[in-house]
Amino acid sequence: MGTRGPLFRWDEVDESFSDRARLQAMLDFEGALARAEAAAGVIPPSAARVISGRCSAELFDAGAIADAAARAGNLAIPLVRELSALVARDDPEAARFVHYGATSQDAIDTGLVLQLRPALQRIDEELERLGDVLADMAGTHRSTVVAGRTWLQQAVPTSFGLKVAGWLDAVDRHRQRLVEQLAQPTIPWHTHRDRLAEVATALGLCTGTLGKIARDISLHLQTEVAEVSEPAGEGRGGSSTMPHKRNPVGAATVLAAATRVSGLVGTMLSAMVQEQERGLGGWQAEWEVLPELVGLAGGAVRHLTQMVAGLDVDVEKMRANLEVTHGLVFAEAVQLALRQKGGAGDAHGLVERSCERARAEGRHLREVLAADPEVGKRLPAAELASLFDPQLYLRAAAELIDRVLAARAGRGATPRAGRG
Amino acid sequence: MGTRGPLFRWDEVDESFSDRARLQAMLDFEGALARAEAAAGVIPPSAARVISGRCSAELFDAGAIADAAARAGNLAIPLVRELSALVARDDPEAARFVHYGATSQDAIDTGLVLQLRPALQRIDEELERLGDVLADMAGTHRSTVVAGRTWLQQAVPTSFGLKVAGWLDAVDRHRQRLVEQLAQPTIPWHTHRDRLAEVATALGLCTGTLGKIARDISLHLQTEVAEVSEPAGEGRGGSSTMPHKRNPVGAATVLAAATRVSGLVGTMLSAMVQEQERGLGGWQAEWEVLPELVGLAGGAVRHLTQMVAGLDVDVEKMRANLEVTHGLVFAEAVQLALRQKGGAGDAHGLVERSCERARAEGRHLREVLAADPEVGKRLPAAELASLFDPQLYLRAAAELIDRVLAARAGRGATPRAGRG
Amino acid sequence: MGTRGPLFRWDEVDESFSDRARLQAMLDFEGALARAEAAAGVIPPSAARVISGRCSAELFDAGAIADAAARAGNLAIPLVRELSALVARDDPEAARFVHYGATSQDAIDTGLVLQLRPALQRIDEELERLGDVLADMAGTHRSTVVAGRTWLQQAVPTSFGLKVAGWLDAVDRHRQRLVEQLAQPTIPWHTHRDRLAEVATALGLCTGTLGKIARDISLHLQTEVAEVSEPAGEGRGGSSTMPHKRNPVGAATVLAAATRVSGLVGTMLSAMVQEQERGLGGWQAEWEVLPELVGLAGGAVRHLTQMVAGLDVDVEKMRANLEVTHGLVFAEAVQLALRQKGGAGDAHGLVERSCERARAEGRHLREVLAADPEVGKRLPAAELASLFDPQLYLRAAAELIDRVLAARAGRGATPRAGRG
Amino acid sequence: MGTRGPLFRWDEVDESFSDRARLQAMLDFEGALARAEAAAGVIPPSAARVISGRCSAELFDAGAIADAAARAGNLAIPLVRELSALVARDDPEAARFVHYGATSQDAIDTGLVLQLRPALQRIDEELERLGDVLADMAGTHRSTVVAGRTWLQQAVPTSFGLKVAGWLDAVDRHRQRLVEQLAQPTIPWHTHRDRLAEVATALGLCTGTLGKIARDISLHLQTEVAEVSEPAGEGRGGSSTMPHKRNPVGAATVLAAATRVSGLVGTMLSAMVQEQERGLGGWQAEWEVLPELVGLAGGAVRHLTQMVAGLDVDVEKMRANLEVTHGLVFAEAVQLALRQKGGAGDAHGLVERSCERARAEGRHLREVLAADPEVGKRLPAAELASLFDPQLYLRAAAELIDRVLAARAGRGATPRAGRG
Repeated sequence: MGTRGPLFRWDEVDESFSDRARLQAMLDFEGALARAEAAAGVIPPSAARVISGRCSAELFDAGAIADAAARAGNLAIPLVRELSALVARDDPEAARFVHYGATSQDAIDTGLVLQLRPALQRIDEELERLGDVLADMAGTHRSTVVAGRTWLQQAVPTSFGLKVAGWLDAVDRHRQRLVEQLAQPTIPWHTHRDRLAEVATALGLCTGTLGKIARDISLHLQTEVAEVSEPAGEGRGGSSTMPHKRNPVGAATVLAAATRVSGLVGTMLSAMVQEQERGLGGWQAEWEVLPELVGLAGGAVRHLTQMVAGLDVDVEKMRANLEVTHGLVFAEAVQLALRQKGGAGDAHGLVERSCERARAEGRHLREVLAADPEVGKRLPAAELASLFDPQLYLRAAAELIDRVLAARAGRGATPRAGRG
Repeated sequence: MGTRGPLFRWDEVDESFSDRARLQAMLDFEGALARAEAAAGVIPPSAARVISGRCSAELFDAGAIADAAARAGNLAIPLVRELSALVARDDPEAARFVHYGATSQDAIDTGLVLQLRPALQRIDEELERLGDVLADMAGTHRSTVVAGRTWLQQAVPTSFGLKVAGWLDAVDRHRQRLVEQLAQPTIPWHTHRDRLAEVATALGLCTGTLGKIARDISLHLQTEVAEVSEPAGEGRGGSSTMPHKRNPVGAATVLAAATRVSGLVGTMLSAMVQEQERGLGGWQAEWEVLPELVGLAGGAVRHLTQMVAGLDVDVEKMRANLEVTHGLVFAEAVQLALRQKGGAGDAHGLVERSCERARAEGRHLREVLAADPEVGKRLPAAELASLFDPQLYLRAAAELIDRVLAARAGRGATPRAGRG
Repeated sequence: MGTRGPLFRWDEVDESFSDRARLQAMLDFEGALARAEAAAGVIPPSAARVISGRCSAELFDAGAIADAAARAGNLAIPLVRELSALVARDDPEAARFVHYGATSQDAIDTGLVLQLRPALQRIDEELERLGDVLADMAGTHRSTVVAGRTWLQQAVPTSFGLKVAGWLDAVDRHRQRLVEQLAQPTIPWHTHRDRLAEVATALGLCTGTLGKIARDISLHLQTEVAEVSEPAGEGRGGSSTMPHKRNPVGAATVLAAATRVSGLVGTMLSAMVQEQERGLGGWQAEWEVLPELVGLAGGAVRHLTQMVAGLDVDVEKMRANLEVTHGLVFAEAVQLALRQKGGAGDAHGLVERSCERARAEGRHLREVLAADPEVGKRLPAAELASLFDPQLYLRAAAELIDRVLAARAGRGATPRAGRG
Repeated sequence: MGTRGPLFRWDEVDESFSDRARLQAMLDFEGALARAEAAAGVIPPSAARVISGRCSAELFDAGAIADAAARAGNLAIPLVRELSALVARDDPEAARFVHYGATSQDAIDTGLVLQLRPALQRIDEELERLGDVLADMAGTHRSTVVAGRTWLQQAVPTSFGLKVAGWLDAVDRHRQRLVEQLAQPTIPWHTHRDRLAEVATALGLCTGTLGKIARDISLHLQTEVAEVSEPAGEGRGGSSTMPHKRNPVGAATVLAAATRVSGLVGTMLSAMVQEQERGLGGWQAEWEVLPELVGLAGGAVRHLTQMVAGLDVDVEKMRANLEVTHGLVFAEAVQLALRQKGGAGDAHGLVERSCERARAEGRHLREVLAADPEVGKRLPAAELASLFDPQLYLRAAAELIDRVLAARAGRGATPRAGRG
């Protein structure tokens, strides 16, 4: 059942890091090694054929290999022993050439890379799906007004579509980072782990952005804000005791992943300081940490996609929330207009005092300003009133959203040059 | 000005980690060493007197010592050289006995402990002030009803005083953890850093709680929630462009500290793996990290105290927010009552369906339930109505608050047994 | 087989965090809750009896519960549902009182504490065994001379027994830290995680010390140092390709654990910033991290004990290595003696120049010094020669070792006052 | 003097993060904003000219601004206030257009990017110098035989030049990573911090490799290994008490940096979860952490370059150390040869037993094998003897070294495509 991981369950989507996949990846290395050595005349072609033919995870007892690995210190030693025995059963001569000239770390590291490639590919596919959902939402809500919030306070109106476009833009950057990983090395790299650690950082960065999106959504979902909502799902997000609760399980899962990745990425960086030709402790530290990072990043993007795809956006509530401050969110617009107009005094201070008065007296900022002769001198009533229009804040939004959508369309599936 | 630290400024409150204090602490070690060696007959008493008399930071050029330290690898080497020169000026014989038989790390580590003691004491005093403010608030708001929120959703009513008592209880635990640190070692400990790393964990744990409190307050402060507010301060929390903004600067500062401590504590733990009789890299990693932790924890408690002491609690808004859900926050109470009554069916499911209906139809849960014959069979109308009373949720609160206040009063200034 | 954890396998020693144990701990909570509520008159005694009787993990399908948990967001929701169904089969009335008035987190947190207690107890037992082995070794090697090494360079002679006593002293401190954990709370603590995070720090601190010991041993084990050795084990520490290798698998395992704990402890600290009455993400982040910390600390102590218990100490090689520097490791002794004698000039500089000459000319430091008239004036030949005796460095060692052994004997199994 | 940073002192090399530079970068933003707004017709050109003319850090009191920043919550607010006052002194009209339409974060973030660019450029220059030194060393020691060491044990002979080429190859990868950072954004990115966090990861990855190199060197420097040495420097690496000590200060500094970066990178990842349109705590957490990362990475590469440039490589000692095992380091070669020959039995086991015997009897492996009839049957004496030649292990080394050097030459100063 997993004390481990009741939440993430990335392994349901991607089996690249299952026990079987791990063995198979190492066996793929052993088979390819034998064939390459035969091609180079180092071992007999017939031996390579027999070895290759036995490199199938189904033929091995994973449990027994794991038990032996605990004593041997790594999985390759018992696996090579078992493979040799298997080959020897049919062809004792061929058995002499199993794992010929290779070390345990060759098998384990190459196996790991063979597991990482499809895993990163799967995460990329999930990110693409997330991007699709976000692109739709950004387009739909191009002109939806919502309170822009800074320091958890309402600041000025903005476009909800632009906010979503910001999420999308970041998600697309992470796809690029992931696609650049795992270039071919030119020399042995047993204790130079920067490429693997960079995979970890790419996964960590990606999960950080997913966490940011999840936190944003969870704030919109708050009872008192209620600008988006999740439909009640069957068995999803209920409470064991409060019948009315709809818990944002997806957001919690993504945020938990984001909380965890930073420490794990830090571990991969710490583990880079590996001694001499094989590390003592650093290498072994990676073994569980990198698969965990894959599972957390993959699980997070999957949960977030599911959550975002199901969101109901309440356009009316967004507009209504803008009224909560009685016009204070338009203070910046008034201030900028006053500065344009010039005249005596400090526009910022003048508006600030009006805001204080509006707050203290429970009046709308527009009224307070309209009654102020200082303001009247510079801003005619109609002009003042026109500043209290959230649409003014959307002027640049459409263009910015289009830039993001166009970049996305233009990029297509082409990986960037340079790293490949 | 400090690219470093525009926010925390703990050094204004506590100078234990100033440059001067650092030199003085190491000089205190050198003076005490000389006196102890004289008392033990290892060096002449006259030499000890002269050495002791020169162990005053004012007599040294801190900048020159720092420059030399960068080449020497630590501060003790140039400091000992300068101290020897200073002593030799008056008494060349005595100069032979400066730092006699000691190593650099003896001076640096002992100096560090001498700096940490008053620093932890100062943090404890700040925590005590914070506790005083919280104790007042917990007592005052013993019966103030507020929405208990889980997963950022309104759950059930609770007592705001109880919430504050929870903060207070945690703050008091951290005081105990801090007071237990820095016991006397029985043997040399140059590469056994667990006591120093434990100081780091105690500071990290404390800052984690401060971050939790700051996050809670910042959520209460949100424009749409507005259950507490910060008075506008002179020059505090304004925006450079939005005249109406009151930014919760204190909360941001505390949360920034909480974000930073976890990595720093992790560094102190990583640095524990120090080689043989003197570490290569681990020891040096501590030098800036532990002072940073002191500054972050100290700065955080100071900012939080200042913020909490200035909060206005809006009891009416707390009550009003409980109405936002049209009675859904009482769903649990109804469910428990129905389970007590028994009868056919699943109480949880029954109430859940009523909640869905209330939400969908925009009606109050009480009405929906009152109209449901299944409910009526088991709960008479008056009894049903009585369940929609937030006071029911306060029954245990007063007792729990009292427990916390009593524990606080009982504890007084007495450190716990065991560690001292 | 575990892509996860081929190395640590703490679960073989302690099942506190197995899937079954996790379910059982939550069921223990549910049973105890029912009995307590019956005793308090909240639910019928008969219901409590039936509920209690069904709280046995064997009666549940762990896999199905885990699957449902992934959707529900936690394990308690499906577990309570299944428990209710199980109870209802015999006694539908009793089923109404399953999990009565509790929330998911009550069951999960209490269950976690019930798992942690025996787990910490088991780790303590392992630490005790490690301490026993170290105490023996410290006593045996009380007078064994070994090079004290600082910055990875030979510094001065020391006692190997004293080095081991330093390890032992630190191990015993961690036992005390662990025994102090998990005191009874006085009020609900759902979002105050300092106690759990403190457990994490105690485990992290402990693993840091274990890593320090493992690194020390691995340095002693180096081919060129060879002061200790591991007997070749059956299937332990071999290489897949180099027949002569004895890899220190135990040390690598412990160092891998030490590399990993710092990030995980950092995560527990980050996760402390939990919102309001239930955290969104922070709580969920703990679920896998704390069990991992238990497994890493437990696995590390187990592997280290096994390694240390099997070490062969080569007393002769320790003494021989002290000769490698041709007397340079006695430079400090000469310098101190010269300072005692007084006379013209700078003793440190004088000996430093002699060391340079000894190095450059490949001669023994004793010879170089004996030929120096400056030295001869102050130190007669016999006195000079007597300084090149490593036994001089052991004078304080025996007493310090005895202090550690006595503290250990005195402490016995008694937990310290204060925290319990 | 800096309690802070007696070791790293990157600020001596690069002033990008000095207090003055920080103010100037923000002022550069304000000046450029004014000019751009004038060009776009938003503010009067004359105002832009006056504003631009005052954007010089020398005109401001950095200390006063820092003091005010502590209350205001960031540096931009007091800086804008002071700039406005300065402009107003000459031209009150122009003062209305200072910081027009911008927010604090615009100034602070843009300023940060303007500081990062030259800082990364400087680090790149230092990495280039390090690469030059390593390239020389790799070429010089192309055929220098040294023990390859795995798990801190001698494994098989290798080329010291190849080892250095591995360091060089990694260093060059980090240069590429750094040159790819800080692409132009297409839309506002106030709470999307992935680009800044990626800079942090690039610095962290780089420092990880530097730490690996420093650890390798420190192991070669050990008293008992002594394959490289550092010349005694004036005031560098001495001990306060041991006249013979040469402490590898550079290595300690680099390792301290490597120990610290992982936690700081983790903090930058944690801080990515920033709320809505402006983060509360996450943004502020970055302020000191990113400059610290720059200083640690920069300081580490500088110290490492200085250390590596001064190393004496003792080719004879490298060869002599290969003799320490009495031929065991050639066990793999014998085993591979026996596998090629075929015949009865298990070559690995056969050689393993010979190794055991050689160890137990203190004999050379060659002798033990020569006396074994099983071996004699398959390997004629001359052929056996020829396997004990370290040159056999250098066959691929020259080609691999050339690959690294050629890649370096080919790359030149051209940044990779894709990211720019």
